[in-house]
Amino acid sequence: MSSVRVGFIGCGGIANLHMNNLSRIEGVELVAFCDVDEGRAKAAAERFKGNAYTDHRQMFEREQLDAVYICIPPHAHTDQEILAAQTGVAIFVEKPVARTLDKALEILEAIKKSGVINSVGYHFRYFDGTDLAKERLAGKTIGMVMGYWMGGLPGVYWWRRIEMSGGQIVEQTTHIFDLARYLVGDIVRVSAATALRALHDVPDLNVPDVGVVNVWFANGAIGCIANTCMLRMGYTTGVHVITPDLIAEVSWSGVKFIEPNRTEEIRHQRNGHFYESVVFVEAVKTRNQSLIRCDYADAVKTLAVTLAALESADRNGEPVEVPNLSAEGG
Amino acid sequence: MSSVRVGFIGCGGIANLHMNNLSRIEGVELVAFCDVDEGRAKAAAERFKGNAYTDHRQMFEREQLDAVYICIPPHAHTDQEILAAQTGVAIFVEKPVARTLDKALEILEAIKKSGVINSVGYHFRYFDGTDLAKERLAGKTIGMVMGYWMGGLPGVYWWRRIEMSGGQIVEQTTHIFDLARYLVGDIVRVSAATALRALHDVPDLNVPDVGVVNVWFANGAIGCIANTCMLRMGYTTGVHVITPDLIAEVSWSGVKFIEPNRTEEIRHQRNGHFYESVVFVEAVKTRNQSLIRCDYADAVKTLAVTLAALESADRNGEPVEVPNLSAEGG
Amino acid sequence: MSSVRVGFIGCGGIANLHMNNLSRIEGVELVAFCDVDEGRAKAAAERFKGNAYTDHRQMFEREQLDAVYICIPPHAHTDQEILAAQTGVAIFVEKPVARTLDKALEILEAIKKSGVINSVGYHFRYFDGTDLAKERLAGKTIGMVMGYWMGGLPGVYWWRRIEMSGGQIVEQTTHIFDLARYLVGDIVRVSAATALRALHDVPDLNVPDVGVVNVWFANGAIGCIANTCMLRMGYTTGVHVITPDLIAEVSWSGVKFIEPNRTEEIRHQRNGHFYESVVFVEAVKTRNQSLIRCDYADAVKTLAVTLAALESADRNGEPVEVPNLSAEGG
Amino acid sequence: MSSVRVGFIGCGGIANLHMNNLSRIEGVELVAFCDVDEGRAKAAAERFKGNAYTDHRQMFEREQLDAVYICIPPHAHTDQEILAAQTGVAIFVEKPVARTLDKALEILEAIKKSGVINSVGYHFRYFDGTDLAKERLAGKTIGMVMGYWMGGLPGVYWWRRIEMSGGQIVEQTTHIFDLARYLVGDIVRVSAATALRALHDVPDLNVPDVGVVNVWFANGAIGCIANTCMLRMGYTTGVHVITPDLIAEVSWSGVKFIEPNRTEEIRHQRNGHFYESVVFVEAVKTRNQSLIRCDYADAVKTLAVTLAALESADRNGEPVEVPNLSAEGG
Repeated sequence: MSSVRVGFIGCGGIANLHMNNLSRIEGVELVAFCDVDEGRAKAAAERFKGNAYTDHRQMFEREQLDAVYICIPPHAHTDQEILAAQTGVAIFVEKPVARTLDKALEILEAIKKSGVINSVGYHFRYFDGTDLAKERLAGKTIGMVMGYWMGGLPGVYWWRRIEMSGGQIVEQTTHIFDLARYLVGDIVRVSAATALRALHDVPDLNVPDVGVVNVWFANGAIGCIANTCMLRMGYTTGVHVITPDLIAEVSWSGVKFIEPNRTEEIRHQRNGHFYESVVFVEAVKTRNQSLIRCDYADAVKTLAVTLAALESADRNGEPVEVPNLSAEGG
Repeated sequence: MSSVRVGFIGCGGIANLHMNNLSRIEGVELVAFCDVDEGRAKAAAERFKGNAYTDHRQMFEREQLDAVYICIPPHAHTDQEILAAQTGVAIFVEKPVARTLDKALEILEAIKKSGVINSVGYHFRYFDGTDLAKERLAGKTIGMVMGYWMGGLPGVYWWRRIEMSGGQIVEQTTHIFDLARYLVGDIVRVSAATALRALHDVPDLNVPDVGVVNVWFANGAIGCIANTCMLRMGYTTGVHVITPDLIAEVSWSGVKFIEPNRTEEIRHQRNGHFYESVVFVEAVKTRNQSLIRCDYADAVKTLAVTLAALESADRNGEPVEVPNLSAEGG
Repeated sequence: MSSVRVGFIGCGGIANLHMNNLSRIEGVELVAFCDVDEGRAKAAAERFKGNAYTDHRQMFEREQLDAVYICIPPHAHTDQEILAAQTGVAIFVEKPVARTLDKALEILEAIKKSGVINSVGYHFRYFDGTDLAKERLAGKTIGMVMGYWMGGLPGVYWWRRIEMSGGQIVEQTTHIFDLARYLVGDIVRVSAATALRALHDVPDLNVPDVGVVNVWFANGAIGCIANTCMLRMGYTTGVHVITPDLIAEVSWSGVKFIEPNRTEEIRHQRNGHFYESVVFVEAVKTRNQSLIRCDYADAVKTLAVTLAALESADRNGEPVEVPNLSAEGG
Repeated sequence: MSSVRVGFIGCGGIANLHMNNLSRIEGVELVAFCDVDEGRAKAAAERFKGNAYTDHRQMFEREQLDAVYICIPPHAHTDQEILAAQTGVAIFVEKPVARTLDKALEILEAIKKSGVINSVGYHFRYFDGTDLAKERLAGKTIGMVMGYWMGGLPGVYWWRRIEMSGGQIVEQTTHIFDLARYLVGDIVRVSAATALRALHDVPDLNVPDVGVVNVWFANGAIGCIANTCMLRMGYTTGVHVITPDLIAEVSWSGVKFIEPNRTEEIRHQRNGHFYESVVFVEAVKTRNQSLIRCDYADAVKTLAVTLAALESADRNGEPVEVPNLSAEGG
């Protein structure tokens, strides 16, 4: 493969971030851009000298793609990945992979059948600080995990509709659930409480603005993942893994290790967003799925945890078992 | 009343802290000291020139007390408070007030009948930083609350036995539950996960060493209170009350206010332990129950929350409604 | 004046920052751009639809300017300000105002004769956090001042030549000297030690890479201003004003107040660079010099302090009296 | 030597700290206590079952001592060390070793002639965090050093009299000068500014309450050591050693290392005060002077630096060369 020919489905904010990153990686051509908003597709196409589409089926028919970035809202996933898989195109999907578990499992099935390279955009897995945390936690007894995404309300409309985005837990805090899974292991049960407390006046909003989710890990550890989108300022975001003599706090900016008499803070040197594309491109070029740190099957498990949390919140905190996808997902 | 004559039931660590504080307050006489461990009773009696007892019934018969400090393990509460109430002696009880709700309600009944001054040692309520937090939070929409007691294992035997102490949630983190109630309001439902992860080798220990408790407040706010006693170092302790534009983090040492573009940290100037005795003595002298920041009835409500958390943990996270004690407790 | 017509002499990095800011201020037209590097002049001219020059004399002849931004290295100041003053054009000069005191005094003379509005780019004076520090320090006994500019080596060639830039003290740490003067008052004597310790291998560099300057203020306070340009990381930058019960630490990002039992950190809300241009434009429009927080005369005093520090360093720490410019500069 | 028999000259605050430490070290007997205040001598003698003296000459005559701790104000040093040396008694002296260089050199002469074990109480040299700083700085290019002792006024009378204590620089900040010397090397020149700004109303006080001292190291590095005793709160204390890619900040509580993208804070595990006595006792027992981290000769060099700073301050900042004591002091 001389160069990797990449198409985009969805040309919004996160897609543009990926385009910028890909344009800095050698051996990548950005050739096709699809968006239901024609203006956005054309703008990207113009910028990168590619073709614009409003229908991804047409794009798959007309273009010879090696890989596709699918960067669309959770509810918008229909057959994008399935067509890509059937066409033998490698797939990079933004998190969360879908709005429902049924849709995600349908897509997973197609991907597995096709054997295409697949990667999901849980970029926290690609920080060097995350590697370091994983390394230093190895062999330690993890007692509990505290996770946080405490911030403000994203600006996009669909995010505020529970039926479109799934709300903060499913759409945003999914990063924290996934990182907790990556550092500690599978989550098997959840119990959640959510509420709408401060954002009553935001037009059309029907998602909660605060939430706490207790989690039970398969290895016996427990934890809580808390989130809010009501803040007018920044606050804690990250995963704090707690062992008797080492606490690792992984955040966007770096990792902090707390030990008896010693505290160390290390800023990430590697940009997680950039590096996940570097790795994906390498995997596509070398047809080596094992380079990928979060494949589609693994991302479906993270989705399953957050959907279980939604269900628990709807049932007023009743614990919900996370479906065991190991048989299908491994 | 020329001076307040105080007796002690229980002469262990926390009792000695109260003795030291009381000895610095004008108009207080420490006259009687009772402990099942005769040595401890005698040591205190010698130090303060009072009488030693091993049986509190005898102490109540022989001494003319104005007030009694009851500083005993949760399971050890039998008729100490009841006898005090019947004798018309003002009561200062250390938290938690009992090991079971039935016992606490029986004691509450006796206290209410007698009308004696009563106070419970939730000293977080007496910090000036707590006042400031309450003041600045007034009128704000509280979205959520995060509470923490993350530390090591206390040295006393009974603490490690669930049937004696109730474990960390009931015995220690009760401070955090109480402070959350004081700052935010009544808690009506809880869901808890606990586990024993690291302290398997501690002899006779049968309490969990990690726990997370989701809480639902009567006013609609939610939160999580997390604790662990497995750490070999210090970590977070306190209550973080979160509103859209003000976060108040109250801890042992002070209070931190986080606002957009502004952070303020204030160390407590007033020692909560000292001041709760100053206030109690004043209340006894002036027969003014309204000075007390946590009466017995209020403390029973905090106990009820933590016992509900225990029950939920036993039922694998099943949410448990906190009994409504307002009728009795008001 | 319908709109303020602005020209630039010097179109490098800091000039572009000012252009960006001015383009966001209503009632400003960027009309002329002069740089000895024709490419830079043309690039700016193209961007803002103005005219490009390589000779500022020509620019003054051909353009009808209301104001000129002079953003050139210290040694490059010849007659730019003088011509502007003679033409009645308001002057915004970047710090430091010149490489020698003689040149600065010659320019000051011309400005005073002309009466044109004049402002120097000591943007620390325009932060809201600086206002707050000034306000809270009012009436306090300032004992001492610690100032810092601890960072890395700027990328421009002339900065590394002592005869061009004056070195870090004169070119960069001048901000800190000026802020100390603004917060505390005039500096009357200095004693400096400098050395070249780590940057031996930087081609053509003949400026020291570490320095400490003891300062005596007219009001009796003392202090030290320390700087280094040898770091491969960020470190302290700012002015710390120390009184018995209040320490104010003003930095780029905000101000921190330290009091007994209380610490407060406030991020600047107002961008100093932007606001200094807002104020300058307003002063030009209203012909009101009193709005300006650092006029040319005041900036000359700051230059005099840093040049005295250079002289002291050259004389191995011998204290040097700062020339009294109050008669001329007031 | 079965056990080390220790006498004390001076039984004030710091002496009591040393007594407490020595009483916890095996193989040490506290046998004699001398103080011009008889009450203090008797109190110590009673506590440790030793003999009390008000005249140290008498003590040396009557007691068979292996070592003596000399803990007296700077101006009070007369012949205490000389008599000890002549009697063959090992010497532990508190810093600073004298009020004048002449007296210190006279004592040094006597100590050198006698060959007794000698140690000076610069306990910063004994922290494990100091070891770590020294280790990590090895081989680095030290550019500059910032030192601080910023705090309140000590409670003892003699401290406030320049003729008795030498003031803060000589008496207190001497720790910082010594630590800078220990970490970086000899100081050869100083220039100081001091002032009395806030403590005018303290009765009899004639020492400055603020001061900054520029220092030139023999190896070419420079720095500033700043102090104040006017604060009503705590502030910075310690030595910050600055290299291009590693900054080590050593303080009372620990050491902080700052590197590009990485910060590490380590609390001292070893109590410097305790450990300096452990080492001194071991040196006495094994007659091994090489264990001592600050011998008398080295401490005289630190004294010489601070006295040079005093002289410079008196001469309004005129730089003062530190006398070269290497010939005498080695």
